[in-house]
Amino acid sequence: MSPLTLSTAFSPRSSQLHPRCLHFLSHSLPIFYKFKSPHSFCPKSQNRPIFLVRNCASITAKPSSQFRKKSADSEQDEKLRSLRELFSKPGIGIDAYIIPSQDAHQSEFIAECYMRRAYISGFTGSAGTAVVTKDKAALWTDGRYFLQAEKQLSSNWILMRAGNYGVPTTSEWLNDVLAPGCRIGIDPFLFSSDAAEELKEAIAKKNHELVYLYDLNLVDEIWKESRPEPPRKPIRVHELTYAGLDVSSKLSSLRSELIDAGCSAIVVSMLDEVSWLLNLRGNDVPNSPVMYAYLIVEIDGAKLFIDDSKVSPEVMDHLKNAGIELRPYESILAEIKNLAAKGAHLWLDTSSVNAAIVNTYEAACDQYSGSLDNKRKNKSEAYGVANGQSGVPTGVYKISPILLAKAVKNQAELEGMRNSHLRDAAALAQFWSWLEEEILKGVLLTEVDVADKLLQFRSMQAGFLDTSFDTISASGANGAIIHYKPNPDSCSIVDVKKMFLLDSGAQYIDGTTDITRTVHFGEPTPRQKECFTRVLQGHIALDQAVFPENTPGFVLDAFARSFLWKIGLDYRHGTGHGVGAALNVHEGPQSISFRFGNMTPLQKGMIVSNEPGYYEDHAFGIRIENLLCVKEMDTPNRFGGIGYLGFEKLTFVPIQNELVELSLLSTAEIDWLNDYHSEVWEKVSPLLDGSARQWLWDNTRPLAKQ
Amino acid sequence: MSPLTLSTAFSPRSSQLHPRCLHFLSHSLPIFYKFKSPHSFCPKSQNRPIFLVRNCASITAKPSSQFRKKSADSEQDEKLRSLRELFSKPGIGIDAYIIPSQDAHQSEFIAECYMRRAYISGFTGSAGTAVVTKDKAALWTDGRYFLQAEKQLSSNWILMRAGNYGVPTTSEWLNDVLAPGCRIGIDPFLFSSDAAEELKEAIAKKNHELVYLYDLNLVDEIWKESRPEPPRKPIRVHELTYAGLDVSSKLSSLRSELIDAGCSAIVVSMLDEVSWLLNLRGNDVPNSPVMYAYLIVEIDGAKLFIDDSKVSPEVMDHLKNAGIELRPYESILAEIKNLAAKGAHLWLDTSSVNAAIVNTYEAACDQYSGSLDNKRKNKSEAYGVANGQSGVPTGVYKISPILLAKAVKNQAELEGMRNSHLRDAAALAQFWSWLEEEILKGVLLTEVDVADKLLQFRSMQAGFLDTSFDTISASGANGAIIHYKPNPDSCSIVDVKKMFLLDSGAQYIDGTTDITRTVHFGEPTPRQKECFTRVLQGHIALDQAVFPENTPGFVLDAFARSFLWKIGLDYRHGTGHGVGAALNVHEGPQSISFRFGNMTPLQKGMIVSNEPGYYEDHAFGIRIENLLCVKEMDTPNRFGGIGYLGFEKLTFVPIQNELVELSLLSTAEIDWLNDYHSEVWEKVSPLLDGSARQWLWDNTRPLAKQ
Repeated sequence: MSPLTLSTAFSPRSSQLHPRCLHFLSHSLPIFYKFKSPHSFCPKSQNRPIFLVRNCASITAKPSSQFRKKSADSEQDEKLRSLRELFSKPGIGIDAYIIPSQDAHQSEFIAECYMRRAYISGFTGSAGTAVVTKDKAALWTDGRYFLQAEKQLSSNWILMRAGNYGVPTTSEWLNDVLAPGCRIGIDPFLFSSDAAEELKEAIAKKNHELVYLYDLNLVDEIWKESRPEPPRKPIRVHELTYAGLDVSSKLSSLRSELIDAGCSAIVVSMLDEVSWLLNLRGNDVPNSPVMYAYLIVEIDGAKLFIDDSKVSPEVMDHLKNAGIELRPYESILAEIKNLAAKGAHLWLDTSSVNAAIVNTYEAACDQYSGSLDNKRKNKSEAYGVANGQSGVPTGVYKISPILLAKAVKNQAELEGMRNSHLRDAAALAQFWSWLEEEILKGVLLTEVDVADKLLQFRSMQAGFLDTSFDTISASGANGAIIHYKPNPDSCSIVDVKKMFLLDSGAQYIDGTTDITRTVHFGEPTPRQKECFTRVLQGHIALDQAVFPENTPGFVLDAFARSFLWKIGLDYRHGTGHGVGAALNVHEGPQSISFRFGNMTPLQKGMIVSNEPGYYEDHAFGIRIENLLCVKEMDTPNRFGGIGYLGFEKLTFVPIQNELVELSLLSTAEIDWLNDYHSEVWEKVSPLLDGSARQWLWDNTRPLAKQ
Repeated sequence: MSPLTLSTAFSPRSSQLHPRCLHFLSHSLPIFYKFKSPHSFCPKSQNRPIFLVRNCASITAKPSSQFRKKSADSEQDEKLRSLRELFSKPGIGIDAYIIPSQDAHQSEFIAECYMRRAYISGFTGSAGTAVVTKDKAALWTDGRYFLQAEKQLSSNWILMRAGNYGVPTTSEWLNDVLAPGCRIGIDPFLFSSDAAEELKEAIAKKNHELVYLYDLNLVDEIWKESRPEPPRKPIRVHELTYAGLDVSSKLSSLRSELIDAGCSAIVVSMLDEVSWLLNLRGNDVPNSPVMYAYLIVEIDGAKLFIDDSKVSPEVMDHLKNAGIELRPYESILAEIKNLAAKGAHLWLDTSSVNAAIVNTYEAACDQYSGSLDNKRKNKSEAYGVANGQSGVPTGVYKISPILLAKAVKNQAELEGMRNSHLRDAAALAQFWSWLEEEILKGVLLTEVDVADKLLQFRSMQAGFLDTSFDTISASGANGAIIHYKPNPDSCSIVDVKKMFLLDSGAQYIDGTTDITRTVHFGEPTPRQKECFTRVLQGHIALDQAVFPENTPGFVLDAFARSFLWKIGLDYRHGTGHGVGAALNVHEGPQSISFRFGNMTPLQKGMIVSNEPGYYEDHAFGIRIENLLCVKEMDTPNRFGGIGYLGFEKLTFVPIQNELVELSLLSTAEIDWLNDYHSEVWEKVSPLLDGSARQWLWDNTRPLAKQ
């Protein structure tokens, strides 16, 4: 999948800790300009690497066709009227309300009942923030969605084209349109603590107060009965065969880290972290096998906050074995207060844990200590807490230790990734074989037909669960729209005379896939071949890279671009993102990107995508994506006494030889392609028969060296 | 020249503005470990890119043979005794005194009279800091100099092996050995303002006070008559043919910047900035054609603070034409006070301007305004000063605007660089031709003999002035010592059976050169050939890089390492440093380094070195260095509507084909080498005759492709 979804997580604000970096970034690489984040409320990652998926840009999972294309103005107006009526209700008393895209866990994919911004504004794009004052309503979104937002917003909404010159941020706009000293309301569950703090600071310039409305979400109040129920899909145990490490071992490592940090408990709020730590998988949101839950791990126990109707007896046993008790999802704040009262020192990752939790804890600590000088001063360090339970409770504000533990895969996770990728490759071979035949027969297929058929092939593979993101099926010029999502009512026919880009992935019981291939069914132009070949050369250069331990991913990014740069071309997205093992298709902390802020070193066992591309507006798009696993290389030397790392390929699907301009490739590059294809045949052909096997044979023949 | 001298300029402290970067840097790339700066007083570059040469690590220009190898203990003790006697003198009253390596201008090369640390301690290495308390004396230096310092320090000195585990910084040590509340003296001229502020903060933890002794340098007091006179070499006009831009034009641009920043004047303190701005060149320090001077440029005038005995009538006219008046060098502080009294807003680059100047200005401003709340709060921004001369004077603390202006060369400067490089190449061809013949004849030549002969050949070239740094002439294992400097008394014979590394450069009237070649006079081992070839491949990859405008140099660094990385090798220095045009051989702000803090984009007209290497301890060293000029590339596309940049070679000296392992090279790499050699022949052969011409012919023959 294109790492552009990662890029939307880049908030200029999140780099404010690096004023110099930011300064140069914003003026330096031109490839930034498209990605100025519209998310005024992206949390600033105090301790986290700053380009994490999790921080913002929730991508709505529902196809837009399930929403009405353009709600009647009157209905939208009615919603705004109802919302504003609530502003003056007792216990509320606000002058404006901010409705972000997020759920309470900063998830990339969210359940429909949490799509409040879409409900209130009518705008269903994945990224956006709605702000409603007593007499104005404005919606911020980025360049990908300007057209869609124009169509979907009623005349009562102002569209804020984020990133365009002169367009204010949400807080700038609020500071501008409100008289000084107003009260601006938010649902504190929907903002990370960092994001809320940042917002509070920004609006304080105009003496506005940020009001946390804990008890009710104003949009839910007006949504009422028509609001979908929160998801209650059953959760399941993620078998040890795939997880590789049992829950007790994971908890035990985590507890060691808590003790080392002088903490008595940690609040885990990211859904994939809860799933990974407990070896559980859910089905509450599309594309990600997770369930809505919070987890609190103490030194001597753990509590899972979840709707218990999702918990089968088997899962209950699994949890009991690991010493985990159940609590209602809604009781999280009550437990936070209890912990503060007990004097617990909580580890809180304020870049992901929501403001409701962090503020409740801090307020309870203040109450407990009877003092107000108990605020966090230095988020990155514990305050020399000698003993986890003694003294005045204080938070330890650090990046979640689960983030890195989850990113570095163990052998069982890697085995699951390898196996699921082979089955995925088999499905793709069947699909491409079918598609080529249909297209060449002259059958008219739309981009959506094609995506549906792909889903069908994948569904037949063992352990298939879901797609891992919405399939990007793009013919011709649509391929140049990096986040293209075909709409059944308006999408294109897959044209035999044009290039076709297909970026898709799946969730299997044992792994998560993400692959892009670009093909031409007819005769590509020399231009298309040259661009494709240079993208391929970048792909090969990154695939073949060897680098010392402790190298951050961005150091390798230029390898993937250098062949395009030679002829003055480039692409406006990162080259690689992390991928979970039978978990989220986007995960941190590592990345391979031209943005230099993510200093996380690539480590053995991490998974990254390798997906350089090139996009020619109104013409075609090219992307070649494999998933890679970071492995130790057996280099003949180990200069500096350290290890050297490289990549193992996980993806085994042919790259179209017909698009390769052979004269541009070096012998070593031709060898790479031939070796890859020979490995594809070897690994995937046993899973195929009939025409798909023939197609694989035809498409893995070596290119002759010139 | 090896950019390691740049690396010594890296102070962990100087990154404190990037807490996250620092965190990861210090734990990430192992290639850092050798470079933890011993310079506790490296200024933290508030506004400057952080890896500037200027900030520290003065390299003493005098060959160590001119100092006594090991001063008699008694003489050193006598010096310490005299120094300590001064501590209790009226108007002094200190408990410790810090003697850094620097002069008052943060120069890389300094005049002998300013080598106070060498005088007081007996340690003559280029980098070090001496600290003397009433009963202790300690000297900090880094790994390059441990052996030398052990030999040179008397038993009264404690050697602090900076970078070794557990070795404190100077301020940590002072905080440790002194009772709380002591007075620690410094000469405020020898510390940048940033460095002094940082020191002040560090020792405040133990309640110590930093005492600025403006009126006398305590070392000079005891040095007395034996102290060399300050240099008074005549200065000369740097002809417009070479400078390309007259002084009035340069001043006019500078004044526009002053006005834009709301300033009424700027204090220029870096010697190369004064020289560049005034189109003057001096001869006060070895290797750099500069003269000791400060310059103050006001909106309507300018004053040069200099010993007027250096100023010939011709130079006087040149200065008068540009409206520049002379003032005595020593009157700088008086003028600073005058300016404050006039209400002038001074632009001060606190990373280079010394603490004496900045503090004098601030104190005078306080006095002028009668208030004490006039301290700088935000160094990076002017305080909304509406008018350069009105209101309470305040400093504008920003990076010097001359830094970038000087780094981006104009056509005349580039032409001078090109021409001087061809003459330098001719001298090198004569030298290599001579050396090869002598060595193969069996003549025994030491590393110093060889360096002397090289100087002789260069001296015969038109416009030759000086070496641009001390020649690194290293046979065999000495080549693995990155900063090796042969000592006439102890250096090696250049061995026909070993590799020989020669890194040298020259100052010409029209340009500055810096080149490294590594050769073998006999039969290299397969290991040596493989390493040499991989270094060469990195050199070629960087040379051939094409990249979008606004790319910082570090993005390209991995290109130069990737071939070594493949077999688990690396080198522990950056790949490229900036070079002045007939000025300092090291200049900022750009660099090409694995350290990611320098975000300065490479710009058309900048000059950088391309010098990957590989060093096998106790065996051999390899470095291949050319100078490059950043040029615009005529790419067939300009994606993003911006320009794409690449490099033009300035250096034209053969690379030894005998060290190339042909089987490792791609066709394109062989073409590069053959094309380069053909260009070398074409450009340099017209300047040669006889055996040197024959040598050039022999050494520019194409390698056959395999």
